[in-house]
Amino acid sequence: MKCVFAEEQMAHAPKSFLVNGVITSTPEKPERADILKNALEKHGHSITRPGDYGLDAIRAVHDDRYISYLERAHERWSRIPGASEEIIPNIHPLNRNNGYPKSVAAQAGYHSTDTSAPISKDTWHSILWSAWTAIEASEMILNGEKHAYALCRPPGHHASKDTVGGFCYFNNTAIATQNLLKKYSKIAILDVDLHHGNGTQEIFYDRDDVLTLSVHADPERFYPFFWGYTDEIGTGAGEGYNINYPLPLGSGDDPFMECVEDAMKKIKNFGAEVVVIALGLDAYEGDPFAGLAVTTEGYNQMAKIIASYTDTPILMVQEGGYICDELGDNLVSFLRGIED
Amino acid sequence: MKCVFAEEQMAHAPKSFLVNGVITSTPEKPERADILKNALEKHGHSITRPGDYGLDAIRAVHDDRYISYLERAHERWSRIPGASEEIIPNIHPLNRNNGYPKSVAAQAGYHSTDTSAPISKDTWHSILWSAWTAIEASEMILNGEKHAYALCRPPGHHASKDTVGGFCYFNNTAIATQNLLKKYSKIAILDVDLHHGNGTQEIFYDRDDVLTLSVHADPERFYPFFWGYTDEIGTGAGEGYNINYPLPLGSGDDPFMECVEDAMKKIKNFGAEVVVIALGLDAYEGDPFAGLAVTTEGYNQMAKIIASYTDTPILMVQEGGYICDELGDNLVSFLRGIED
Repeated sequence: MKCVFAEEQMAHAPKSFLVNGVITSTPEKPERADILKNALEKHGHSITRPGDYGLDAIRAVHDDRYISYLERAHERWSRIPGASEEIIPNIHPLNRNNGYPKSVAAQAGYHSTDTSAPISKDTWHSILWSAWTAIEASEMILNGEKHAYALCRPPGHHASKDTVGGFCYFNNTAIATQNLLKKYSKIAILDVDLHHGNGTQEIFYDRDDVLTLSVHADPERFYPFFWGYTDEIGTGAGEGYNINYPLPLGSGDDPFMECVEDAMKKIKNFGAEVVVIALGLDAYEGDPFAGLAVTTEGYNQMAKIIASYTDTPILMVQEGGYICDELGDNLVSFLRGIED
Repeated sequence: MKCVFAEEQMAHAPKSFLVNGVITSTPEKPERADILKNALEKHGHSITRPGDYGLDAIRAVHDDRYISYLERAHERWSRIPGASEEIIPNIHPLNRNNGYPKSVAAQAGYHSTDTSAPISKDTWHSILWSAWTAIEASEMILNGEKHAYALCRPPGHHASKDTVGGFCYFNNTAIATQNLLKKYSKIAILDVDLHHGNGTQEIFYDRDDVLTLSVHADPERFYPFFWGYTDEIGTGAGEGYNINYPLPLGSGDDPFMECVEDAMKKIKNFGAEVVVIALGLDAYEGDPFAGLAVTTEGYNQMAKIIASYTDTPILMVQEGGYICDELGDNLVSFLRGIED
């Protein structure tokens, strides 16, 4: 399998994670990428370093002022007397049309849905390389590769056009998908992360050229809470082009595979020319988030189901999946299922 | 001056205030009310205890599910393993139409614009009595009093129909105003707090029976950041019935009085039958928020301007104003100006 990775993604090492009123440490650590990269190397996958793709492909997905905010926010925040080392927002608008504030303290709230995506001095650099990693893998597909895997970190699927959230800043999956539209006209994104891919859903919500599907823990009692329900089906031209599969907490392989199979039928009917997998590995039974119970063998089975339903190229973009003994095994189990 | 106060308001004693990424202590302390009450007593004002007005007048302003949330949120939050003692939200919807979550962790974000209104076990009790304090004072006006002052705490003017924020939970000023509409048909609210009265503005934004005006520090670099600009003029039937006077940071008596004078002219033209003053005292030059520079004498002058423009009853509802040596003096200075 052709894989892409950039060491620069490791610099971003957020410390804080405000959840349930307590500032704790984040599970989205650089070591995650080490584990995944080591597993790739151990199993003989070739790893390519991405090029510098600039901002064009990122601008095709994210708002310009959001990109400017991300680039300069930490420097501006650091000038607030007594402010924390990392940006944690504390004030939010009621609606997106409440006007755009000038103060970085308020912009931080405007551009955040939650407090799990702090911005440090190293964030900008790493999120650029994370997006470029996804773009490089999409270029491989554009150049005729059947399969490619982007080892992106930080992840991206909770980032909307103009908000960070859930450890995500740039939506790598959406950026790679948009880049593929240079050549293709119909693409499906299947998100198998434990958490609903709310950012990806939002980005393509009013469009019929990208079918978005997400299998995840029921958001009724699980992050991201506000999104991921079955009645979110898209809007305008995009109506019918967003499909959510919320699963009861604790669900294991069987119900998960049923959803993946149904999703692949819909992707086939849609006529997708490329399938993009938002490859979170945190639905694993041993993941610290403990929301679902997919097994290591389940990841292999899942990939086989996906591959069996389509002859199109398959691009895989790393999303969540947190530190546990089997994190690397789950990745190679999935990749093997795609290649078989 | 007839004044209203309830000791039960003192129970709410929030500890935390997350601002600029740091959890610090809140300036909205129970002692504020002690200082104001002592000043009233020292100057011979009569203080009445409010009755129990139930929820009807509160429901006339706030959404039912917001009221239910406030009543039960702390008990529900306390059942989250490892959660903080007070509710501090960490996840927010992008828009009000993103659906209503079932989890209290997400409801906390849905019902909060910021992290400065934590909910403790004592909050519900105190905010009820704070609302009843305002209602009692409005009943005095309904019963023929010319002037009445409600010593409300916590304050209310940042609370919208369904969000806490800026130390506020129930919008006491809006609740009292709505109660006055039992008898009157045109009421003006003049908010002289240092901070824009965004909650009050939101509640009456589409209505022409309540003219809302606010003089405050320019929100471009000051809380509440998203609201308080001159282009916010109301919507629908309410278009033209909301007027904002943002003042440059550090402005003193002269520019403040010019705004109050202009506001009173507009209130007179509107034909208000009652004038409600959202009486924040934090525009004071010695207030810890240090946003504007109104003097103690300025508060007297401000009240005289208000009284000189109207023969209608005047209801005053306490909003902000934080601990400093002159907090009590500023209140009695204002009340004296109204009575003279």
